[in-house]
Amino acid sequence: MHASLLIALDWFGIVVFAATGALVASRKEMDVFGFALLAIVTGVGGGTVRDLLLGRLPVFWVQEPAYILVCVIVAVILFFTAHLPESRYRLLLWFDAIGLSLFAVVGADRALDVVPNPVIAVVMGVVTATFGGIIRDILGGEVPVLLRKEIYVTAALAGAGVYVGGQTLGLSEPNALLAGFLSCFLVRGLALWFGWSLPPYRARPGRPQDGGRR
Amino acid sequence: MHASLLIALDWFGIVVFAATGALVASRKEMDVFGFALLAIVTGVGGGTVRDLLLGRLPVFWVQEPAYILVCVIVAVILFFTAHLPESRYRLLLWFDAIGLSLFAVVGADRALDVVPNPVIAVVMGVVTATFGGIIRDILGGEVPVLLRKEIYVTAALAGAGVYVGGQTLGLSEPNALLAGFLSCFLVRGLALWFGWSLPPYRARPGRPQDGGRR
Amino acid sequence: MHASLLIALDWFGIVVFAATGALVASRKEMDVFGFALLAIVTGVGGGTVRDLLLGRLPVFWVQEPAYILVCVIVAVILFFTAHLPESRYRLLLWFDAIGLSLFAVVGADRALDVVPNPVIAVVMGVVTATFGGIIRDILGGEVPVLLRKEIYVTAALAGAGVYVGGQTLGLSEPNALLAGFLSCFLVRGLALWFGWSLPPYRARPGRPQDGGRR
Repeated sequence: MHASLLIALDWFGIVVFAATGALVASRKEMDVFGFALLAIVTGVGGGTVRDLLLGRLPVFWVQEPAYILVCVIVAVILFFTAHLPESRYRLLLWFDAIGLSLFAVVGADRALDVVPNPVIAVVMGVVTATFGGIIRDILGGEVPVLLRKEIYVTAALAGAGVYVGGQTLGLSEPNALLAGFLSCFLVRGLALWFGWSLPPYRARPGRPQDGGRR
Repeated sequence: MHASLLIALDWFGIVVFAATGALVASRKEMDVFGFALLAIVTGVGGGTVRDLLLGRLPVFWVQEPAYILVCVIVAVILFFTAHLPESRYRLLLWFDAIGLSLFAVVGADRALDVVPNPVIAVVMGVVTATFGGIIRDILGGEVPVLLRKEIYVTAALAGAGVYVGGQTLGLSEPNALLAGFLSCFLVRGLALWFGWSLPPYRARPGRPQDGGRR
Repeated sequence: MHASLLIALDWFGIVVFAATGALVASRKEMDVFGFALLAIVTGVGGGTVRDLLLGRLPVFWVQEPAYILVCVIVAVILFFTAHLPESRYRLLLWFDAIGLSLFAVVGADRALDVVPNPVIAVVMGVVTATFGGIIRDILGGEVPVLLRKEIYVTAALAGAGVYVGGQTLGLSEPNALLAGFLSCFLVRGLALWFGWSLPPYRARPGRPQDGGRR
C-alpha cells in the first residue's frame, strides 16, 4: 500500500508540475509542441536530476514512458484552457507549491531507497522539488521562482526534513509522508498568501555602493 | 554499412552544431578558447544529455576524444572566418537546422539501441536535437532558439517520428534515416524561409491583463 | 600522501566555490536557505557534472555527505559576514580564481583515474573548474563569468594542461599539481589584475551591421 501511495503522489506531482510548464508556455505564446516540451521538462525534470545524481539509470521515465504521455496530455489540455483562470501566473505559483510539497517527500523517499543517509535524503528531496521549476524558468525565460523573495527552498527543506525526521522517529510511512507534505505546503502556501519571506541578507546601512543592489 | 552511415551523420551533426556554437562566440566577441568551449558544448551537448538519461556512461565523447578535437578545429576555423558570411545569425540558424535534422534521427536510433520503445526513441531524438542549441543559447546569453516563434521542436519531432515510424513500418534503415532527416529539415527550413509558425497560444481577446504579455 | 594532498585541494576548492555562491546570494539579498542552496550547487556543481560525464555514480557528495554540510556552514558564515569585505564582487572573482585553479588540476586527476586519456583529462579539468561558476551565475541571475572579457576558460585550460603535461613528462604528482595550480592562478590572476584578455573575435571593419554587436 505504501508503495502505491508513493506512486500516486509521484504521478500527481508530475501532473501539477507539467501544468506549470504549460502555463509558462502560454505566457510565452508558444505553439502546442512548445507547451509539450516545457510540460515534459518541468514534470519530470526534478526527478531526472535526482536519478542522475543517484545513478539510478536509465532515469525513471525511460523505464516508464507513460510519464511522458501524461505530460503531453496535460500540455494539450492547458493549450486549450489556459485562458480560463483569472491569473495564470497566480495559478502557476499554487500548482508549483503543490508539486514542490509532493516532490520534497517523494524525492527524499526515493533517495533513501539508494543511500540510507538522512542528509542525502533531505538534499535529494529539495533537488527533486526545486529543479523542475528551475529548468522551467530557465528554458521559458521567466524570472526564476528561486529568486523571488517569498520562502521557497526553505519550504522544500521543511517538507523533506519532516518526512525524513518523522521516519527516523518511527512514524509510519503514510503519516510521515502526510506530515512532510503538509509542512512544505503550509510554509510555502502561507508565504505565497501573506508574501512572507525570511529575513534576507541586507547590505549594512551606510554602504551605499552595495546597499539596494539586486 | 548502416552503422557507418549513422556514424557519418553523427559526425556531420557535431560539426555543424559546433559551428553554431562558434558563431554565437563570434557574436559575443569571445577569444579563441571561448569559441572552443561553446563549440564543444554545442557540438556534443545534445548527445551528452541523451547518454546521461539513457545511462550510456561514460558519455560518447569520453570514449572517443576525437569528437572534442573536431569541435576545437571547427572553432579555430570559425575564429578566423566568421566575418566572411553576410549574416552570421542567418548562417547559424541554417546550420542549426541541419544539425537539428541529423540529431533527431541519430538520437532516436541511439535510444532504440538501449530501450526498444518508440515513445522514448522519439523523445530522445528531440532531446538530442534540441539540447545542444538550448545549452549554447543559455551559456552564450542569446535569446533561446526555443523561444523564437518559428516551428522548432515540431520539426525535430517530425524527424524523429518519421524515422521511428518508418522503421516500424519496415523501411530499410538508410531509407528511414533519409525520410526522417528530410522531414525535419523540410519543416524547419520552410519555417525559417517563410517565417512559418504553428497557431500559438493566444490569450482570449478582452483579457487585456494577459493579452500581449510575452 | 598524494591522495591526501588531492583530497585537501578538493575540499579547499569546494569551500572557496561555496563562498562565491554565497556571495552571489548576498548580492541578490536571498534568505539563509537561498545562501545554502547557491553555496551547495556552486561548491559541488563542477565535480558533479564531471562525475556524471565519467559515469562515476552516485556522484561524489552522495557518497560523502560531509561536502554538503561544509557548504552549508560556509553559507551561514557568509550570511552574517558578507557585508564586511569592501567589494563583494571583487572578492567573489578572486575566490572564483582560486577555486578555478584548484578544480582544474583536481578534475583532470579524477578523470585520469577513470579514462587514461590526456585530452579527456584536460577537458574534465576545464569542466570541473568552470561549471560550478556557470551554474552559479545561471541560477543566481548574474552575467556569466564566462562572458566577461578577461581570460577565464584559457586559465583553466592552462592549469589542466600543465598538470597533465607535467605528469606525462615525469613530474612527481605534487609537483605537477603545484605547477598546474600556479599556471592557472597566475593566468587568471594577472587577467583580473590588469584586465587582460586574449585578442577577441572582432567583426571586420566596414561591416556596421555586425560590428560592435554584443
